[in-house]
Amino acid sequence: MFSTVLIANRGEIALRVARTCRELGIRTVAVYSTVDRDSAVVRFADEAVHIGPPPSKRSYLHIPSIIEAALQTGAEAIHPGYGFLSEDPDFAEVCETNGITFVGPPAKIMRQLGDKAVARALMAQAGLPVLPGSHEALTGPLAAQETARTVGFPVILKAVAGGGGRGMAVVRNAEDLSRAYSRTSAHARAVFGDERLYLERFVEDARHIEVQVLRDTHGTTVHLGERDCSVQRRHQKLIEESPGPGLPEDVRAAICAAAVQGAAAVGYVGAATFEFVLTPDDEFYLMEINCRLQVEHPVTEMVTGIDIVREQLFVAAGQPLTIGQDDVRPRGVALECRVNAEDPAREFAPTPGLLSEFVQPGGQFVRVDTHAYPGWYVGPDYDSLLAKAVVWAPDRPQALARMDRVLSEFRIDGCGVRTTIGFLRKVLAREEFRTARHTTGLVDAMAAEATAQPELEEAPAEVVT
Amino acid sequence: MFSTVLIANRGEIALRVARTCRELGIRTVAVYSTVDRDSAVVRFADEAVHIGPPPSKRSYLHIPSIIEAALQTGAEAIHPGYGFLSEDPDFAEVCETNGITFVGPPAKIMRQLGDKAVARALMAQAGLPVLPGSHEALTGPLAAQETARTVGFPVILKAVAGGGGRGMAVVRNAEDLSRAYSRTSAHARAVFGDERLYLERFVEDARHIEVQVLRDTHGTTVHLGERDCSVQRRHQKLIEESPGPGLPEDVRAAICAAAVQGAAAVGYVGAATFEFVLTPDDEFYLMEINCRLQVEHPVTEMVTGIDIVREQLFVAAGQPLTIGQDDVRPRGVALECRVNAEDPAREFAPTPGLLSEFVQPGGQFVRVDTHAYPGWYVGPDYDSLLAKAVVWAPDRPQALARMDRVLSEFRIDGCGVRTTIGFLRKVLAREEFRTARHTTGLVDAMAAEATAQPELEEAPAEVVT
Repeated sequence: MFSTVLIANRGEIALRVARTCRELGIRTVAVYSTVDRDSAVVRFADEAVHIGPPPSKRSYLHIPSIIEAALQTGAEAIHPGYGFLSEDPDFAEVCETNGITFVGPPAKIMRQLGDKAVARALMAQAGLPVLPGSHEALTGPLAAQETARTVGFPVILKAVAGGGGRGMAVVRNAEDLSRAYSRTSAHARAVFGDERLYLERFVEDARHIEVQVLRDTHGTTVHLGERDCSVQRRHQKLIEESPGPGLPEDVRAAICAAAVQGAAAVGYVGAATFEFVLTPDDEFYLMEINCRLQVEHPVTEMVTGIDIVREQLFVAAGQPLTIGQDDVRPRGVALECRVNAEDPAREFAPTPGLLSEFVQPGGQFVRVDTHAYPGWYVGPDYDSLLAKAVVWAPDRPQALARMDRVLSEFRIDGCGVRTTIGFLRKVLAREEFRTARHTTGLVDAMAAEATAQPELEEAPAEVVT
Repeated sequence: MFSTVLIANRGEIALRVARTCRELGIRTVAVYSTVDRDSAVVRFADEAVHIGPPPSKRSYLHIPSIIEAALQTGAEAIHPGYGFLSEDPDFAEVCETNGITFVGPPAKIMRQLGDKAVARALMAQAGLPVLPGSHEALTGPLAAQETARTVGFPVILKAVAGGGGRGMAVVRNAEDLSRAYSRTSAHARAVFGDERLYLERFVEDARHIEVQVLRDTHGTTVHLGERDCSVQRRHQKLIEESPGPGLPEDVRAAICAAAVQGAAAVGYVGAATFEFVLTPDDEFYLMEINCRLQVEHPVTEMVTGIDIVREQLFVAAGQPLTIGQDDVRPRGVALECRVNAEDPAREFAPTPGLLSEFVQPGGQFVRVDTHAYPGWYVGPDYDSLLAKAVVWAPDRPQALARMDRVLSEFRIDGCGVRTTIGFLRKVLAREEFRTARHTTGLVDAMAAEATAQPELEEAPAEVVT
């Protein structure tokens, strides 16, 4: 096992990775931007290196600074967390060149699967169901029109280099397609530096089901079951759970088997998430593959008892997974709610500010992953995630009751800071969510209702608690 | 189910009970003494009632104030937590007289089992193994000498009304017996208001193994497996774990079956803990029965996934247990460490003080039950428990590594405040603890070593972190 690991990330995930490192007796090196100098992981880590100011391209995305920090501190491996450099094949290559292990798949695989059009083609070849759509990147609006005519509306345009729910547009008819194409393509170029798009049939009333897979360099593939992440705003997840509620056993088995098949087909190494769209008829289609740790991995950890970061580190060190498929025996139900510093009443706009109060929940069957504390400044430079509240219970009704209790325990205050807590509690109380009949359209539907009945926005549940 | 429950306790356990109540949709009423007015449970509960000043006999032990608070707030039940009134049959009776449900066994059973000599006799009758000793309370030092001669030295004198590890003395030879008798009897009178003692053979190099039992009013008895609580100072537990490490399967099965048999024999109702002494030859003998929730119940919750307080409430409401024996499938290993405001270098003397800093650990597979926060005054009026750090892992080596990581995360500071953290980490590192060959003599052995090598007391691990 490595003796020193550098964590090329910030916030709650940097702390979470550092905790597993410490349990394995690994020395941890944190890196931090100027505004993160007082962050929790900087206090926790054995060593911390300043890598530059915001924005991220001058620090957390600045490869030379991170490599230099690793070389200076004798780090043998770099864990990228999620976001930032975690899906950058160039970074993985530079690590390799410098004799540093990148905790993730080989650059070649990241490059293939990072190109959503290539990944789609590869997975179709491996026998996984993909939605009807373009076979490769579209050459332009005309090609998009042609493909859309074959596929049938509605369709969804997606950036080839996309991820994290950005660079997507649902298009409902031919008239809107060209304009949507230009806009999405321009957005993709701005965000990902790659304007190429592809197109798929868009499934209405879909659920988002994803499968956590682990694969080692010895050829062992294990899945840790599925997660339902259908509660999303702007294609970004707000609530995740495992197992997928109400999923028929045969569908569950088939979807997990598909993910394992896909991982084996490309010779994957490390932790991957296979994201599927599930239709109202329980048909599933692969959307994309994420070659990194996911934000919502704790729900899988809580139902399986398996520390995913620990497995990532063993795999990166060239060792076999410490678990086989028989060791994966999911138990009960886990839910995660993302407590973000955002204002649900203003389309979830980030609300930066200094936290004057931050009391986190606790007690039985609860896990809170957070880097926040009283006095922490929630800055505008990074994402708005304040805390992940995760609960476990023997069954879903108990898990819902527990999560509501947990959300009620947060005491977060700070000038200008709003949170998603009130909104999350509203979702938990929704009949379609309680009965697991919700789809990815739930949050939009709630927003539409709120607009139709603006006075509801003044309800106490919306107040920051 | 009850609509309002009053929690007749303070500190972490009051908060812990309140959390389960909230998950069940039960309105919670906290009671507090003058110095506890800013306590965590007072903030958390739906309502809070002031019941008087310290010491406890004027507040948490003052039955009229508590009953009045329950009547005023419309509480239909009272959960007593542990300590204070939780083992007082008179209190259970007064509750009943006032039409309030006491969350615990009926007064008659508490009275029988609370008298350690009667409990011993009852359980021997039920077929449970008890140590050779006096069949009833001793009439005086002469009777003690006579019994000790039959039983053989060493023996242990115990207060008939004892509990919580108080009112005990190990006697190694006949010469010391009379003086030990007088001293222990006087202590028992002072602490429990009952000077009577009984006597048992004392087992050297013993382990403390206890079994968590639940029994409902419908006659269903379920055990939740065993806990090993052998790491004790002054007969009070410091580290607890489940399952008992290295316990042969047949012994585990026999000891759990004995507890179930004992609970059924007396028609027990509620949560009980059967405490056994385990000899180096894996023979076990019943020591006593605790008719309440134990401090260390979270380790059982973590390995079984069962919320014990929830079951207590269902049983108290006359409903069946929500689980059967088949639902109890312990998984992995859970450890609890008691982080006390005590100075291990001064025989664990309490160190009251104002907490200027209190950062608790977090992350994967961790539970911290605490009422402490920055600014909380750890007063001299109550016990010195600051936090219970509980971890779960698939196996014991991982659980030990995780606990050490967790203890390393605490940041506790305050003028005069010392904690057990450094000492706990030393225990975790001990070879005999790591290999589960430790006995109830471990802490004394460590203290003796420290006295022999006083310079070790200056080691960094002893410093409050």
